[in-house]
Amino acid sequence: MSEEITYPDWIAVDWGTSNLRVWAMTAEGEVLAENGSDQGMSDVAPDEFEVTLLSHIALWLGSGQTPVIACGMVGSRQGWGEAPYRAVPTTPLGTLHTIPCRDRRIAMHILPGLKQERSADVMRGEETQIAGYLADNPEYDGILCLPGTHTKWAHISAGEVVSFQTFMTGEMFDLLSHQSVLRHSIGDGGGLDHEAFVGAIADTISRPEAVATQLFKVRAVDLLYGADPSVSRARLSGVLLGLELAAARPYWLGQPVVLIGTPALNTLYAKALSAQGFEPAACDANEATLKGLFAAYRELVA
Amino acid sequence: MSEEITYPDWIAVDWGTSNLRVWAMTAEGEVLAENGSDQGMSDVAPDEFEVTLLSHIALWLGSGQTPVIACGMVGSRQGWGEAPYRAVPTTPLGTLHTIPCRDRRIAMHILPGLKQERSADVMRGEETQIAGYLADNPEYDGILCLPGTHTKWAHISAGEVVSFQTFMTGEMFDLLSHQSVLRHSIGDGGGLDHEAFVGAIADTISRPEAVATQLFKVRAVDLLYGADPSVSRARLSGVLLGLELAAARPYWLGQPVVLIGTPALNTLYAKALSAQGFEPAACDANEATLKGLFAAYRELVA
Repeated sequence: MSEEITYPDWIAVDWGTSNLRVWAMTAEGEVLAENGSDQGMSDVAPDEFEVTLLSHIALWLGSGQTPVIACGMVGSRQGWGEAPYRAVPTTPLGTLHTIPCRDRRIAMHILPGLKQERSADVMRGEETQIAGYLADNPEYDGILCLPGTHTKWAHISAGEVVSFQTFMTGEMFDLLSHQSVLRHSIGDGGGLDHEAFVGAIADTISRPEAVATQLFKVRAVDLLYGADPSVSRARLSGVLLGLELAAARPYWLGQPVVLIGTPALNTLYAKALSAQGFEPAACDANEATLKGLFAAYRELVA
Repeated sequence: MSEEITYPDWIAVDWGTSNLRVWAMTAEGEVLAENGSDQGMSDVAPDEFEVTLLSHIALWLGSGQTPVIACGMVGSRQGWGEAPYRAVPTTPLGTLHTIPCRDRRIAMHILPGLKQERSADVMRGEETQIAGYLADNPEYDGILCLPGTHTKWAHISAGEVVSFQTFMTGEMFDLLSHQSVLRHSIGDGGGLDHEAFVGAIADTISRPEAVATQLFKVRAVDLLYGADPSVSRARLSGVLLGLELAAARPYWLGQPVVLIGTPALNTLYAKALSAQGFEPAACDANEATLKGLFAAYRELVA
């Protein structure tokens, strides 16, 4: 009795700056298997993208040619092959950019990112998550917030990304909490004091310029009076997120908002917005990515 | 004929987090010699402060006991010996904190820092520069701005520090320009485009919350249209300094301002303030430190 092997109909790839994730997929969008590593595109030499990808998916390849659809920084100028930005307003999914491969078993396609010319901005990867959300909610009219290292706020209408804005809040928090003088008060990991978090957000929204003074105050309060790391961490997080919410107010005020991030970031942003009287919906970023890649696959084989 | 050796009457020490500077001084405040290294207090183990200092000043020690007067982070809890903060409003110079030494050739004294309790803040080292400025300008009533990694703005009146506020602008610029995604657009070193700098400051002062969007825009503009590193660097510097000026406005608006920093930082801040219609005076931080330490020496031997 021999075991039957099911080869995937196509392979989904999310290849960002610091991570690579791959999924073996059926033509109906089911996940057969998944794999991943920290071999992000910034760690891969230009001529090693193909062999790096193959090392993650080789077991899934049969005798025929398998389509591979990828999103993320792998399509940037410094990536495997540049899939040029498409200008908003536009639908999130554009024509796939095909990359020639040495190995005939794969047919490689990369999704282009989006750019905004009027108020300069760019995204790569988030457009696929937006497409994934719209695949399930084609009539959605409102705001999608995609929290991450570089959080994106996007205005969606009639199936198009109308405009978007990027905030470096996540990267600033990482740098300040791990590498600035504030690290002595914040420490590694651990919780976030809720009261300090919503207090710092409210203070910053009402007086954004005070950010500049509130940052060192996290350290000074700890030095003079002692503060639990969870309180110091919450103050820093609240100050930075409060600044983002102040600037993104035209996006979230009076609009439906859906968060598309990791469960932890969705919870953080939901807490911040709910303290302002808004109750955003939330959806998992990985699921949205996979649905977006599946939508691109269906267009490819249509 | 033998050469006569002039031993110093006292030794001045500026011992910060990342640098150590020492001067051999006469009783009249003249510098006989100086020395220094990057053996900042964060690199020195608790029981090695004395031997580290001695390695920098041993040649200057005669047969008697030489007073040593130090300022900076060496007086913090993690330093050689804690010289507790003194609360403002107060004169910049407090009672010297004496540290017992194994080597009888030195008598070690550390100047205490200042703290502000109402709106929590601390300084260590800058109080000595303030004392140095006031030694030459005892009647000064106005604002002293001490630009650095952590810039301090201090309100001075009747010989006292009335209040002060710390901004992490310098540290933020270093982290964002060297370690964030912006490093790809800014590069190492190089100039600062004047027009981009004053433009970014003006924009940020008029709309501080936009900082959160302007940061990533430095990168996006470069990606979409190309930008010289000197322009990208100027935008980042202007955005961060603009945020500081917006928050410090109660300090500089309608007040005389004197800058006490390195020549480069004094120039940067003068450019920023003069674009707002203010013409600050400037004085060199090292000279101010030395004058402040000399003022402390005179009180010690009075």
